[in-house]
Amino acid sequence: MSTFIIGSVAIDSVATPLNYRERIMGGSGPYASLSASYLSSNVKLYGIAGYDFPKEYIQLLKQRNIDITNLKILEEEKTFFWSGKYLEDMNSRETLVTELNALAQFNPEIEKNTPTPRVLMVGNLQPQIQEKAIDSFSQKPDWVILDTMNYWISDTPKELDSVLKKIDVLCINDEEALQLSKKNNTLDAAQYLLDSGIPFIIIKKGEYGAYLFSPQDIFYTPALPTVNIEDPTGAGDAFAGGIVGYLDNITTSKKTRRQILKAAMTYGTVMASFTIQAFGVDGLLNLKTENIEERISQLKNLTDTEL
Amino acid sequence: MSTFIIGSVAIDSVATPLNYRERIMGGSGPYASLSASYLSSNVKLYGIAGYDFPKEYIQLLKQRNIDITNLKILEEEKTFFWSGKYLEDMNSRETLVTELNALAQFNPEIEKNTPTPRVLMVGNLQPQIQEKAIDSFSQKPDWVILDTMNYWISDTPKELDSVLKKIDVLCINDEEALQLSKKNNTLDAAQYLLDSGIPFIIIKKGEYGAYLFSPQDIFYTPALPTVNIEDPTGAGDAFAGGIVGYLDNITTSKKTRRQILKAAMTYGTVMASFTIQAFGVDGLLNLKTENIEERISQLKNLTDTEL
Repeated sequence: MSTFIIGSVAIDSVATPLNYRERIMGGSGPYASLSASYLSSNVKLYGIAGYDFPKEYIQLLKQRNIDITNLKILEEEKTFFWSGKYLEDMNSRETLVTELNALAQFNPEIEKNTPTPRVLMVGNLQPQIQEKAIDSFSQKPDWVILDTMNYWISDTPKELDSVLKKIDVLCINDEEALQLSKKNNTLDAAQYLLDSGIPFIIIKKGEYGAYLFSPQDIFYTPALPTVNIEDPTGAGDAFAGGIVGYLDNITTSKKTRRQILKAAMTYGTVMASFTIQAFGVDGLLNLKTENIEERISQLKNLTDTEL
Repeated sequence: MSTFIIGSVAIDSVATPLNYRERIMGGSGPYASLSASYLSSNVKLYGIAGYDFPKEYIQLLKQRNIDITNLKILEEEKTFFWSGKYLEDMNSRETLVTELNALAQFNPEIEKNTPTPRVLMVGNLQPQIQEKAIDSFSQKPDWVILDTMNYWISDTPKELDSVLKKIDVLCINDEEALQLSKKNNTLDAAQYLLDSGIPFIIIKKGEYGAYLFSPQDIFYTPALPTVNIEDPTGAGDAFAGGIVGYLDNITTSKKTRRQILKAAMTYGTVMASFTIQAFGVDGLLNLKTENIEERISQLKNLTDTEL
């Protein structure tokens, strides 16, 4: 069993109404890998960084047993840099700086004869590169989960369509789902995407939780209610990381793939709740199994109608 | 067993992006009563209307076995009139006209020796009038549920505080909870209101569902995902109506009041889902028990993690 996570690796500078932190570890790769590392013991991060990526951040990843053999460090480039500022209500943010740097050259080369992972998470990248990554394994992974964003939806729709035919789960946010489907509500968007042949659609709604759509039914998980939100950055990636980590680890054969995904999303939601309660990746560094299981119970109880 | 619903009775003219209907039945009283009438067989509506309130609307209430003995008709006044327009996304609306008319004289007189109802729902009114209504019964009803609005929160805070001491459940929307508590998030607001001594706080978030806060725990019910929203008017009142109808009808002694309220909110959510799928009160006129039970199952399945 293993989980391959292909994602961006970044240095972030983040301001919230109450706090400011400069040059902390960011990117979908680290958030998702750290999150997954609590649920799967075999997480591999595929990413690219620059010469300025601090050694101590690499240490943090290693301490969580994340395999970073495929985290490439470019000696002549800086790391992808993102800087943003959250507004008063923490729900909206403004991007101040985006410097692609090393990320512009990211083209994950999966070596021949690399054993096929059980779970492959393909983060937001150019669709051709996403497809190449999926195709590079000799077998299809058990689960292929894909993210994308507005830029690829509008600029490379054909290439995106092509990669969408090769995945099991599309995990995107609400606005992306509407844009991709050209529909004006979540339900119609999900139906359109299911009809196009994608087996499962996860639509993230931030503080309003997330939906799983399958041809059989709709599942919804709210976010865990939480007061002390320190930094919402990476919540969606930690959510996805929790999902893939759970999918890699689950061994039961008694459940359908749909049932397994519901459980996975519950874990993803819990991992996201830890993420937002600390700055950057800090909330994902020192968790114990019992912390996670306690919140799983809380989340289950939250919607238990007791009917 | 009986449910007394004290609420506004209105004539509404409502525009949505796709439709327009003039002078239809509206107000919290009719929406809540019609909704409650599917769960309790003894619903009494206390309200006031004017000479222009159509006889056929009274017939609609009677057909649902709602006791309208205490629906007063003023011969010299028009009925409370509200006109509004929903914007493109159906989530926000603009009020075009509000004419209080008969409602300005509403002062529900509960006759001496009126048997105490099991459930008393006191809709949004001047707090002094709300308190007088509660005090007019010789015993305290089993459940007193209260609504209020921004106007009373800002203009008559002392009077509102006084009535809040006499209720079991405060059922308000998110913005009202923040205003009443002077907090900036739902959780802090709910905690403040619980600390002030109100046993249960229900906070409605429209399309994002509703929370129940008690000193022991938090319960959340999402709204039922639904595509064809015709008219969101009255959804919150139908939700409250479903709650009080259920509370009146439940006979088990095996459940705590908290557990009963969770179930009640589930029914409230289902009743609201029928309301928004038709114009005005139309969605509340011809339901069958199996329609309701089917949606209860859907709502339970929606958040079932299967863990």
